[in-house]
Amino acid sequence: MDAKTRIEDALSGALALADQPGAPPRLISAMHYAVFPGGARIRPRLTLAVAAACHPASLPLAAAAGAAIELLHCASLVHDDMPVFDNAAMRRGKPAVHKAYGAPLALLTGDALIVLAFQVLAVGAAKSPMRLAAMMRAVAGAVGAPHGIAAGQAWECEPSPDLAAYQQAKTGALFAAATEAGAAAAGCPGAAWRPLGEYLGEAYQVADDIKDAVCTEAELGKPVGQDAALGRPNAVLLHGLDGAIDHLRALTGKAAESIPACPGAADLRALIRLESQRLMPKEAPAQAA
Amino acid sequence: MDAKTRIEDALSGALALADQPGAPPRLISAMHYAVFPGGARIRPRLTLAVAAACHPASLPLAAAAGAAIELLHCASLVHDDMPVFDNAAMRRGKPAVHKAYGAPLALLTGDALIVLAFQVLAVGAAKSPMRLAAMMRAVAGAVGAPHGIAAGQAWECEPSPDLAAYQQAKTGALFAAATEAGAAAAGCPGAAWRPLGEYLGEAYQVADDIKDAVCTEAELGKPVGQDAALGRPNAVLLHGLDGAIDHLRALTGKAAESIPACPGAADLRALIRLESQRLMPKEAPAQAA
Repeated sequence: MDAKTRIEDALSGALALADQPGAPPRLISAMHYAVFPGGARIRPRLTLAVAAACHPASLPLAAAAGAAIELLHCASLVHDDMPVFDNAAMRRGKPAVHKAYGAPLALLTGDALIVLAFQVLAVGAAKSPMRLAAMMRAVAGAVGAPHGIAAGQAWECEPSPDLAAYQQAKTGALFAAATEAGAAAAGCPGAAWRPLGEYLGEAYQVADDIKDAVCTEAELGKPVGQDAALGRPNAVLLHGLDGAIDHLRALTGKAAESIPACPGAADLRALIRLESQRLMPKEAPAQAA
Repeated sequence: MDAKTRIEDALSGALALADQPGAPPRLISAMHYAVFPGGARIRPRLTLAVAAACHPASLPLAAAAGAAIELLHCASLVHDDMPVFDNAAMRRGKPAVHKAYGAPLALLTGDALIVLAFQVLAVGAAKSPMRLAAMMRAVAGAVGAPHGIAAGQAWECEPSPDLAAYQQAKTGALFAAATEAGAAAAGCPGAAWRPLGEYLGEAYQVADDIKDAVCTEAELGKPVGQDAALGRPNAVLLHGLDGAIDHLRALTGKAAESIPACPGAADLRALIRLESQRLMPKEAPAQAA
């Protein structure tokens, strides 16, 4: 089964846990709307790639971990788009959940997706109960306090935000959890895999910053130039376009080098180099990362 | 160790997981504010009582489950009080979190408390990993979709709400999870313990309805008469005060009778009869439940 199919199947299975008789129909509809159709599913693809590199037989369990991480990513987008934060009208080329369903249901959709992420882990680990706690620690650490997504977003509510902590928590934490959870699903110590996730998380952030600066709204499916408008940190504003591209190249190189010894290390390294090329803006010269 | 100390210690330990260097200070402050000082801690007390009745050695693990359930209860109060829902100014005798910290941080505080609940379970089950999945299923089922708190609240966003599903999900689900998780922490099948939680959940709801009708704002620490004002279902509005008191007495009786066979069944039954007397309004005639 290819990674895309495995991830979409795992997410459909997750939503089916919620979509049972007696559930409020608009909530279920909003949860589906928030998860499908997805974006690039980068984080769960990373979870599967790490699990495959460590121990291919662990892919079914890793799919549950990947689905949990994607559900948490979707939940964070739903809450971030709400009027109390970004008040974003569009997401993935369609109205944001709070625009389509109203703010009250958007809040509950985010809450229900967070809970569903942990349900998916518990159900997915039914045959591998000894791996559940490590996967949970990886996943939970990425979304709560002190260093997860909620903490990252909360730095926007502080009088003196710590920008490094903000960026690491807001975008890096879930990538580090994606690699850590993939290793944990395979029964390997997850900590050694966090640097890969951290480098890639920063790389995707820089790639997003570049897109925010050079793409059109139609290409992205959401408004562009938002970082400059909202005064948010952005690698292009900080280093210029060429500087940001150099930084992106350095990060993906470090990511590939950080891969711990494992049976599939060479394949995973090749995959990351390929993905790195995809992240580069089209006008940038191709170069081995 | 008495139950009150065990619960407050478990909650303090939970908050300590979040209150680490690098965490955004106002988020941590708001999380503390939402959890301390608490209400009656009814749900975690119930978790501990069930675990003690099943197998007293399981109390440390049950304390983690109880803390998780109380954190989820606090999270639901924080989100429910927000302007998009009840827009409640006061909670537990002090300004609600969104009044004290603003709506954005209230949203994140709820999110972070939901995640913390699952972190506490994972950390608490470190020595009993085989019991983690059952505790997680009990706890997660109580807060997400299809039948948990978020689903209950979501019925308020439906054009044709199912009132029975609304009440069961909004108040019964977390009580049923409290008894189920207590049994699961003790290594016992949790399903047999859900009726106890369901009867008690409904009993506390009826007792709250009675308080909403007969108490003053100063006695409750929050506005009274809210159900009538907001058109919410309320046992006193439905059955009259005497009818509601009779219903409460019947529910606590059924709760006591529902206790499955276990080493501490007699003690637990006595505890529930005592608690039942406490729930009765002072003017009601004392009567064996």
